[in-house]
Amino acid sequence: MVEEKENTASANAAAGQEPVSKKGAKKQAKAAKKAEQKAGTAAALAAEDAAGDNAADHASARYGLSEMIQSKDKRSEREFVSVPELNAHVGKSLVWVRGRVHTSRSKGKQCFLILRQQSSTVQCILAVGDIISKQMVKFAGNIPKESIIDIQAKPVSVPTRIESCTEQLLELCVEQIFVISQAKAQLPLQIEDASRPENADDAEGLNIRVNQDTRLDNRVLDLRTPANQAIFRLEAGVCRLFRDILTEKGFTEIHTPKIISAASEGGANVFTVSYFKDSAYLAQSPQLYKQMAIAADFDKVYTVGAVFRAEDSNTHRHLTEFVGLDLEMAFKYHYHEVLHTIGNTFTAIFKGLRDKYSREIEAVGQQYKVEPFKFLEPPLILQFAEGVAMLREAGIETGDEEDLSTPNEKLLGRLVKAKYDTDFYILDKFPLSIRPFYTMPDPNNPIYSNSYDMFMRGEEILSGAQRIHDPEYLIERAKHHGIDTTKIAAYIESFRYGCPPHAGGGIGMERVVMLYLGLDNIRKTSMFPRDPKRLTP
Amino acid sequence: MVEEKENTASANAAAGQEPVSKKGAKKQAKAAKKAEQKAGTAAALAAEDAAGDNAADHASARYGLSEMIQSKDKRSEREFVSVPELNAHVGKSLVWVRGRVHTSRSKGKQCFLILRQQSSTVQCILAVGDIISKQMVKFAGNIPKESIIDIQAKPVSVPTRIESCTEQLLELCVEQIFVISQAKAQLPLQIEDASRPENADDAEGLNIRVNQDTRLDNRVLDLRTPANQAIFRLEAGVCRLFRDILTEKGFTEIHTPKIISAASEGGANVFTVSYFKDSAYLAQSPQLYKQMAIAADFDKVYTVGAVFRAEDSNTHRHLTEFVGLDLEMAFKYHYHEVLHTIGNTFTAIFKGLRDKYSREIEAVGQQYKVEPFKFLEPPLILQFAEGVAMLREAGIETGDEEDLSTPNEKLLGRLVKAKYDTDFYILDKFPLSIRPFYTMPDPNNPIYSNSYDMFMRGEEILSGAQRIHDPEYLIERAKHHGIDTTKIAAYIESFRYGCPPHAGGGIGMERVVMLYLGLDNIRKTSMFPRDPKRLTP
Repeated sequence: MVEEKENTASANAAAGQEPVSKKGAKKQAKAAKKAEQKAGTAAALAAEDAAGDNAADHASARYGLSEMIQSKDKRSEREFVSVPELNAHVGKSLVWVRGRVHTSRSKGKQCFLILRQQSSTVQCILAVGDIISKQMVKFAGNIPKESIIDIQAKPVSVPTRIESCTEQLLELCVEQIFVISQAKAQLPLQIEDASRPENADDAEGLNIRVNQDTRLDNRVLDLRTPANQAIFRLEAGVCRLFRDILTEKGFTEIHTPKIISAASEGGANVFTVSYFKDSAYLAQSPQLYKQMAIAADFDKVYTVGAVFRAEDSNTHRHLTEFVGLDLEMAFKYHYHEVLHTIGNTFTAIFKGLRDKYSREIEAVGQQYKVEPFKFLEPPLILQFAEGVAMLREAGIETGDEEDLSTPNEKLLGRLVKAKYDTDFYILDKFPLSIRPFYTMPDPNNPIYSNSYDMFMRGEEILSGAQRIHDPEYLIERAKHHGIDTTKIAAYIESFRYGCPPHAGGGIGMERVVMLYLGLDNIRKTSMFPRDPKRLTP
Repeated sequence: MVEEKENTASANAAAGQEPVSKKGAKKQAKAAKKAEQKAGTAAALAAEDAAGDNAADHASARYGLSEMIQSKDKRSEREFVSVPELNAHVGKSLVWVRGRVHTSRSKGKQCFLILRQQSSTVQCILAVGDIISKQMVKFAGNIPKESIIDIQAKPVSVPTRIESCTEQLLELCVEQIFVISQAKAQLPLQIEDASRPENADDAEGLNIRVNQDTRLDNRVLDLRTPANQAIFRLEAGVCRLFRDILTEKGFTEIHTPKIISAASEGGANVFTVSYFKDSAYLAQSPQLYKQMAIAADFDKVYTVGAVFRAEDSNTHRHLTEFVGLDLEMAFKYHYHEVLHTIGNTFTAIFKGLRDKYSREIEAVGQQYKVEPFKFLEPPLILQFAEGVAMLREAGIETGDEEDLSTPNEKLLGRLVKAKYDTDFYILDKFPLSIRPFYTMPDPNNPIYSNSYDMFMRGEEILSGAQRIHDPEYLIERAKHHGIDTTKIAAYIESFRYGCPPHAGGGIGMERVVMLYLGLDNIRKTSMFPRDPKRLTP
């Protein structure tokens, strides 16, 4: 049949008009309102609708609002085919497909409808004839966008590629259409707008954008864009790869409590919980519990879970609640045994994403400018002092024992990229004075420590170290930091029953996904983000 | 060489004496105190110790306290072999092994030491001769239990099985022994006591037990028992199987926020959090977020994470914080599509545990009486009304719309086991009146609902249902339950943009492990349990 050459909304937008004509929107709203009123008395709807305004409708049994699916019948006569499977059915018999109305537009005797299933889309057409009535075309054209429908249709080849759909070589000639779950006629955001490429050279994109808060306030809609569908599938992939790679290396998964009796890393930035008649805190990291698992002979452990930071930071990369990918590992002689294990885990994750999630990476790239993530194998390891030297060479004044500021961190990332062509690197041997008291000092140079950070595109995504496993030395270091050792007695006590030397690190999952894809805001990689100003949805 | 026929502590215990002789304990304490004092000045220790009380010690370089491992040297000369690998080294050259002192006892010119590595144990002997000195035997005999040591030794075959060790066919003839991390001489609990079988017919077990609070207070030690090592490895297996099986079925993993703005399932039993200048709550389940992910086109989702219940229940099966294995799935026509998916997931988990974790199941069985877990394939599905009929047949009075009390639940489990020989079954079609407002009513019988529970050994481990996906009907049902719909407006709103019919359920991970193994307390399957009275460690 015919290809719908251009999307009307897009065409209008390009011409500087509103994306959907006011007349069309009103029509839609009216139809939807009517339908919503009907939906109240769901039971007899299909029949009522079919009997509708024109009794002479020869297609009346072929369309309408379905009864709410309440699991009435054990079996249905409808065997469904997914959009990507349609190709195998071209030229064969009729198929049933369930999906959303992505767009729908009737014009005279025809209705063009794009059906969407997650990220897959296919063009459907209804043309008045023996099977389709005028009323049926009108009905199809008035189904609110995002409604879920069942259609029975014949998949047919098209002579010209349909550029606006993922199924470009076929379209569906609809013979039946029923609304399964009807969307509101007025949506707080349009999926098309929310999906529009952010590239500056995209003429369409200049006018219509959906701002971040509108997206997050209406996350159920926002998450339906192809980029978001891909981001959260890739995020699931990061967790999966992290766990599979570590399991392969002999790690055991553990679960650590989130409600704790004392603040794990000092009292600052911790959320307080009412715990029956007492107070408790939300864990800022599973640090103590990972270490206890090592002292309890689990040897190599990881845990994936929520961590909480009561930090009033409103930046592109801070959340008050995020998912921590944490690991801890006993080693024999040198913490580099652990550092290399973590480094290699990252390399394996990057390779896994590249090889198994190329479709998702591409889908995100359609909306956001994604530079392919580069990494070396084995990963690049620089000394902190080398990093400082590179910064100084670039004209930055920074002290030997000074922590990296965010701008210096980013600059160093660029310098490393320019010199070594990698988006991932490890910085080893951080100054002792800027690390927590439980960090093992460097035995060979008193100003450094056995600690490291790892970076993706110039931003820190892991912080880790060898921990002090000797209780007396731990006390000494705590005192040096002015810490009241009575408050960390339980922590110290756990090293008094024999504990192997160990090291580990904590990774922010959302940061890894954000930086792997080169996105600009961590809220894009948290399904339901929490920050100082956002607690909903 | 010779086998140590009996463990002294056990022999003493059987004779009604204290498990370790007082004299021995004092000796150990003294030696440990001395060692601890030395440990303060770790650096020169090995030398100092070797120079010790007898300058004529020909073995002085072969034992002592090691310097704290601080990652000084990049490479060590020691290549380590694990205990299970030792068999391959019998009759060959010397090997290095790192492990814990499980027991150690010197007697005249010999010292018998059992080295433990997680759940593996091997007997080590030191006998005075060309290589070993009297002082070295004494040193080895005085190393506090649970200390971590490095030994260099020759693995040799033994003529008689060593029943007290997992390596029964070989022992290690020690030539060097160094303490890597020294334990306190006085332990709050003995691993041997904590590992003792709980069977009533075990004579040894009658006297020496470690009570639950002592165990939990000293979890770092308690977790070292073979049963605990096995329980938490099996628990990791449950999560792994759950995720792998669902991923295979096309589910996507999601992460849902724990800090929420409104109590997810009514205001009762919810922990309050201070959130900057506001108050927030800890999520009692990921219910709303799973459903939003379905409305957002993720089709089939699961999430593994902490859930919180501020319930003041001090029972064997309640925790205030536990790990939820939650899933939610869109279906086409009947919620049984989901019910069968969940049921089959359980069957696959049970098979995976049986096939891949038989060693762990056996290890737990050595301490606790574990009846093999029985299940049917496909799983047994009973109607709630059938369950009621079975109870009535057994003489129980219970109403058609009455919820199962805990005793009735357990009795029904026994009746089902007797009749169908399965420890797992599904009870479908619970009365509508005892389920939450968002549960879809049964369209065929107004007193029932499209909801189900699943049971293991007669205890509920999953509760689930088809959810109402129609906003108007949801409002109707909420009002029927007397719920203020303005408070759940956001929840209702998420169904206004088209939502497929869906169902799901939530599983308590710790309960699954407890009931699979037939353990009597959920604190045994939570690594760091939280209950109304316990917030530590």
